[in-house]
Amino acid sequence: MAKRPIKNVGLIVKRDSPQALAIARELGAWITARGLVAMAEGDVARAIKARPLAIEDLARHAELIVVLGGDGTLLAIARLIGERETPILGINLGGLGFLTQATIEEARSSLERVLAGDYEVDRRIMLEASVTRGGRGRKAAIADGLRAFNDVVINKREIGTMLEIEVVADHKPFCSYRADGLIVATPTGSTAYALSAGGPIVFPTLNVIVLAPICPHTLSNRPVVLPDTFELEIRVIGKLAAALTLDGQQRIALGPDDAVKVRKSRSVVALIRSTHPYFEIWRDKLRWG
Amino acid sequence: MAKRPIKNVGLIVKRDSPQALAIARELGAWITARGLVAMAEGDVARAIKARPLAIEDLARHAELIVVLGGDGTLLAIARLIGERETPILGINLGGLGFLTQATIEEARSSLERVLAGDYEVDRRIMLEASVTRGGRGRKAAIADGLRAFNDVVINKREIGTMLEIEVVADHKPFCSYRADGLIVATPTGSTAYALSAGGPIVFPTLNVIVLAPICPHTLSNRPVVLPDTFELEIRVIGKLAAALTLDGQQRIALGPDDAVKVRKSRSVVALIRSTHPYFEIWRDKLRWG
Amino acid sequence: MAKRPIKNVGLIVKRDSPQALAIARELGAWITARGLVAMAEGDVARAIKARPLAIEDLARHAELIVVLGGDGTLLAIARLIGERETPILGINLGGLGFLTQATIEEARSSLERVLAGDYEVDRRIMLEASVTRGGRGRKAAIADGLRAFNDVVINKREIGTMLEIEVVADHKPFCSYRADGLIVATPTGSTAYALSAGGPIVFPTLNVIVLAPICPHTLSNRPVVLPDTFELEIRVIGKLAAALTLDGQQRIALGPDDAVKVRKSRSVVALIRSTHPYFEIWRDKLRWG
Amino acid sequence: MAKRPIKNVGLIVKRDSPQALAIARELGAWITARGLVAMAEGDVARAIKARPLAIEDLARHAELIVVLGGDGTLLAIARLIGERETPILGINLGGLGFLTQATIEEARSSLERVLAGDYEVDRRIMLEASVTRGGRGRKAAIADGLRAFNDVVINKREIGTMLEIEVVADHKPFCSYRADGLIVATPTGSTAYALSAGGPIVFPTLNVIVLAPICPHTLSNRPVVLPDTFELEIRVIGKLAAALTLDGQQRIALGPDDAVKVRKSRSVVALIRSTHPYFEIWRDKLRWG
Repeated sequence: MAKRPIKNVGLIVKRDSPQALAIARELGAWITARGLVAMAEGDVARAIKARPLAIEDLARHAELIVVLGGDGTLLAIARLIGERETPILGINLGGLGFLTQATIEEARSSLERVLAGDYEVDRRIMLEASVTRGGRGRKAAIADGLRAFNDVVINKREIGTMLEIEVVADHKPFCSYRADGLIVATPTGSTAYALSAGGPIVFPTLNVIVLAPICPHTLSNRPVVLPDTFELEIRVIGKLAAALTLDGQQRIALGPDDAVKVRKSRSVVALIRSTHPYFEIWRDKLRWG
Repeated sequence: MAKRPIKNVGLIVKRDSPQALAIARELGAWITARGLVAMAEGDVARAIKARPLAIEDLARHAELIVVLGGDGTLLAIARLIGERETPILGINLGGLGFLTQATIEEARSSLERVLAGDYEVDRRIMLEASVTRGGRGRKAAIADGLRAFNDVVINKREIGTMLEIEVVADHKPFCSYRADGLIVATPTGSTAYALSAGGPIVFPTLNVIVLAPICPHTLSNRPVVLPDTFELEIRVIGKLAAALTLDGQQRIALGPDDAVKVRKSRSVVALIRSTHPYFEIWRDKLRWG
Repeated sequence: MAKRPIKNVGLIVKRDSPQALAIARELGAWITARGLVAMAEGDVARAIKARPLAIEDLARHAELIVVLGGDGTLLAIARLIGERETPILGINLGGLGFLTQATIEEARSSLERVLAGDYEVDRRIMLEASVTRGGRGRKAAIADGLRAFNDVVINKREIGTMLEIEVVADHKPFCSYRADGLIVATPTGSTAYALSAGGPIVFPTLNVIVLAPICPHTLSNRPVVLPDTFELEIRVIGKLAAALTLDGQQRIALGPDDAVKVRKSRSVVALIRSTHPYFEIWRDKLRWG
Repeated sequence: MAKRPIKNVGLIVKRDSPQALAIARELGAWITARGLVAMAEGDVARAIKARPLAIEDLARHAELIVVLGGDGTLLAIARLIGERETPILGINLGGLGFLTQATIEEARSSLERVLAGDYEVDRRIMLEASVTRGGRGRKAAIADGLRAFNDVVINKREIGTMLEIEVVADHKPFCSYRADGLIVATPTGSTAYALSAGGPIVFPTLNVIVLAPICPHTLSNRPVVLPDTFELEIRVIGKLAAALTLDGQQRIALGPDDAVKVRKSRSVVALIRSTHPYFEIWRDKLRWG
């Protein structure tokens, strides 16, 4: 995709972080001094003297979004972003993150580099989930267009029970799990919760999804890597209390007859590629290898 | 331990199971016809014409306890049993269980064999947990003498978070886990939840405990087998909502400053050894090997 | 890719299998009766009255290859096949295989279906490996164009030692393994040796490769899924005896300074898709799920 | 076991290590100056002016053995030691080892502490293996009394094949493995090869053995912890080339009809307990937790 010239820069700041706010102020001043427009959410905009905009509008009006915080802050903003593929530059407040791959020390130089057009963007897939209630005939959508950048997770809500989860993939019977839950992860999410559940490390730009059961009862239940073109239909059998969780941040209670559909989102997260190769970030963050 | 002559036989029946009740009635009549005493809880006693006794007293007065149900029923009764090591014969209503190792078809012949003194008993360890609230100086015991036959589990109560758990073992710093939870299992419990979390299969009569983290964040967190003489002190760091679960059946909410102590119980479960070798049960139940 | 009309059918028969030969004879006669040409290798051709051709020429002259045997037979022929993407139909002599996905009972009907043009082809990637000897300056290629359909494996040759293996991926330092060996698998090979080493199950048509270490010394060494566009350069450090193995069938001893390059082959295996969905084959073969 | 007064100190030095020799010389002089006797093998004895003794006799005549080297050196000496349970003090030349738990800096102070009687000994089990050739009737022992301190391993000798291994444990059919091999490990060996193969970390003084298959074909093949009183009978089915390896140091080729018996050795290794708790050594060596 051709790069759009950058005129408006949206600044997203980690909530309740004076450190993030201080850097935002500095970067904001620097952006303005260069004749560009710094944008931010209401309170933050006031604090750093940027142009105020609702967070949902930032992605629409800015040609670049700078996230100052950790992976959690970037995950939250990624789910909000629409279909414009506005490039995101993530600045991590401590060390490196999987998503926020520039350090504070690199904040200014990274931004300079990006404004000079010297950057590459990795288009990373997101997931989209919807929940349908009710059996045949009278179905009702109770949630739709739920996005996840890391993972869609079906979890038990009660301790000491085990879910029975049936999965249809690509319109074919796939697997019946007895487990504490099931993780559907993007490559981006493969180094998050799915890894704790025994999943593989997946290179972030691949067009695949990972299915990893949580504490499966059956010994032979190994994680699976599927094409991201496959649609999944997931159903919790029986009356056990379950929940749907998106990126570990947003949560929806599931009822007994609910079906969860998971597919690749039409939206893509355009993450500005770090100067640190992914392998280096894995070694640093996972003490891998 | 010398076998006590059997005169009183306690019958424990799975709740709401007409099938279990029918077999209990049959075995009860047969026990009475042999000049022995069949004992049961109030309602069950009435239904099968056995001598009624509170469940807590059964273990004290009976020299043999017969459990008709599944592993869940036997787990519940094992936690109630005191220090008399009354032998337990488990009859499973469907196939075999890990604990209820005789089938319905074998119910009568197993009982006959046991009454004839032709049996061996496996003494299996239980765990005992206690919870202390409050920091240094003003501690208060909020739960004590909690027993578990399979496992003591520290679990997160909120989805999408991760616990930080510090463990002191044998009065020495042991490990700091970042995980969904931590399982402390007996050998008996090694084929239950701990196995789903990646733990080894442990021969049931060994004097060891297994520590298996649930979805650990750190890749290197492998399950550990420790002597059952070690006392564990487990503490959830921070303010996240956690819970303590015993055998997946009993549950206690943990507060921010609570410490959980886990040690081997003085009580031992005296399980009558099946005619089916353990290896055969593993293969059958786990599709192992 | 457009389907070429089928006139010549190559029959590949498992060595020393009278059963495979009998079916080949039957299919050969049936092919001839339809006015098509049945082709086979010298001895087999004589035995089943087919047109004799060297095995390397079969792929060139036939528009369809039928393999009668097991996955091993199909693996061997896949490595020989050139760049023409001749479709392969695999008939398994016992049950189903991962590659030979039609049973004996389905042999005739599968062939009929394929000749009628009623089939789909899955284009599956292969790997290509080369070995270079000698340090900087005076390198010499000692093996080139080695193909693998399942996996390229670096293994220790001596028991009781551990290899130190350095991997460069996509021209960047990737990982340094201390292990018994390293498996580079195609998606096709993900259900073979890589699975035994703890790798994920990968959908067979994906454009990825799996790296799975064998018995890694470091606890944190998790399998990795990479784009198949990445070139790998693998080097065994030190003087330990190592070997390169292709599909577990072809083997080359490695010397102390050898470097192994692995990349996607330009050749693709055109496997005729089974009427059995992949998920079903996984469940059947792996007792998965 | 009561501690014997120490008069003779055997010094075992890592082969070809000038550093180990230098420390041995220093400790030897210091031992002699205290009126005790320093003993060593021929060449070493000459070099450090100690009393020369064959290595097999050292354990018999010394009341303390000091190993200067790494875990490998200690493993080799442990296998040689007879039934006298001579205490062993391991000094590691670099960092800490699992077995050699004192650093060079601690060499003198550790020795002083031990000579003062201020130490505890951990009695650790060893394994003993024997190999029998031939079927029923005419069996012949081809190797007997083979000792292992870490592990007895059955390995394939040819790359690209898989062994079929049948195990009888405690005289009952245990498991049939299809795998690259099988590791039988002591608790001491649980942090060595068995850990790489997915086994648990086992506290070193437990009376258990661990069975861990190497790259098992069957997904459900989980490591197992058994009582060390169980005798194992292991048989490689078919004609594949296999080998028996002891501690990764000693190796015996197995023939098609060979049976390997593994049981606890009557000899015990009396390892002087480190001032570093085991948990600390695990964290340090395994980057565990």
